[in-house]
Amino acid sequence: MDPVDPSAVVDLLGVLAYAELTAFDRLAEDARLAPTLGGRAALARMAAAEIGHHVRLTERMVELGVDPAETMAPFVSALDAFHEGTRPKTWLEGLVKAYVGDGLATDFYREVAAFLPDPDRALVLEVLADTGHADFAVREVRAAIAADRRVAGRLALWGRRLVGEAITQAQAVIAEHDALAALIMSGTGDLAGVGRLIERITAAHTQRMATLGLRG
Amino acid sequence: MDPVDPSAVVDLLGVLAYAELTAFDRLAEDARLAPTLGGRAALARMAAAEIGHHVRLTERMVELGVDPAETMAPFVSALDAFHEGTRPKTWLEGLVKAYVGDGLATDFYREVAAFLPDPDRALVLEVLADTGHADFAVREVRAAIAADRRVAGRLALWGRRLVGEAITQAQAVIAEHDALAALIMSGTGDLAGVGRLIERITAAHTQRMATLGLRG
Repeated sequence: MDPVDPSAVVDLLGVLAYAELTAFDRLAEDARLAPTLGGRAALARMAAAEIGHHVRLTERMVELGVDPAETMAPFVSALDAFHEGTRPKTWLEGLVKAYVGDGLATDFYREVAAFLPDPDRALVLEVLADTGHADFAVREVRAAIAADRRVAGRLALWGRRLVGEAITQAQAVIAEHDALAALIMSGTGDLAGVGRLIERITAAHTQRMATLGLRG
Repeated sequence: MDPVDPSAVVDLLGVLAYAELTAFDRLAEDARLAPTLGGRAALARMAAAEIGHHVRLTERMVELGVDPAETMAPFVSALDAFHEGTRPKTWLEGLVKAYVGDGLATDFYREVAAFLPDPDRALVLEVLADTGHADFAVREVRAAIAADRRVAGRLALWGRRLVGEAITQAQAVIAEHDALAALIMSGTGDLAGVGRLIERITAAHTQRMATLGLRG
């Protein structure tokens, strides 16, 4: 495996730091849709945890001598486009997006992180750790489906829309960042390796849909 | 001074915990109005700090054997009414609200906390500690006024509207919570004491307006 281009590391830190900032925004918005004060406080706590991750990533950027705002800037439009295109209209759509959408993104970042040298590999894996959101989302969505089977069909459609948007935006990000694209190619070895990476991510997605009680 | 009614302590923890949750919401909303990525991240970090305070307060409620959601519930309508009635339309209005509105609320809670026994007095004073928001707001507002003198007049009006709404809602909260009202009366000693409390809070407000470069 070739030595890793430092600008690929910086790109990954940048996209992740901005992703954490948008995760914060989204959780904070979803918190306001919560049907109970307890649910609202739970989402607000998860949002706060995302900011903790964001801060860890920006501290590392400063250590590497790059400006956090400048490093995040190239990823703003793709991530904002994803969120604009998949704005949840209900509390349940928000939870499915958080679980399924964040799950996809996390799997992808985790695959890329495996190609990085430490300490960046360890840092990325650390900030990708779940903030308790997954269990919370699964519990709430399953309970809602148990109470009314009809919501399952609508949420399954919503899950498929999330994947489509995520793939579109991931392709756009990679196409515009040569160092990241090179890192993925050299890390996976060849096109067949890229295929296996996509296969692993897809399988994990189908598993998550099933966990929610939805057909992928 | 009479011994403190435990239900007054619980009331104060409840109103503060809900105030932290709404502060989180508001900071998260304001973050999206931020003109720069750096400002947005700064506000998100402050929002996360408010949730840290919220968690400290709810942990204390659990220690005292009361349910956090139930303890916060009686204060939801007054605090929501305040925020609905003073929704900032611009980034600068949001900053003035954060500095002037939170400043007023903090002064009031700090006065009441002084009447509490420890560990609750210490806990309340701890969660009232500024999260860095004040300095940030002052810096941004002063810079905006320096760049365009006309904004000062509009923001001064906005500051007066904030005080009016705050007083209305504070009176509503106290009127509906006898234990809190009794705590304030017994803590200040008499009506003259209440008058001095209001005077101290008003003087600090005028000082904050002046710090921003606004006439109170």
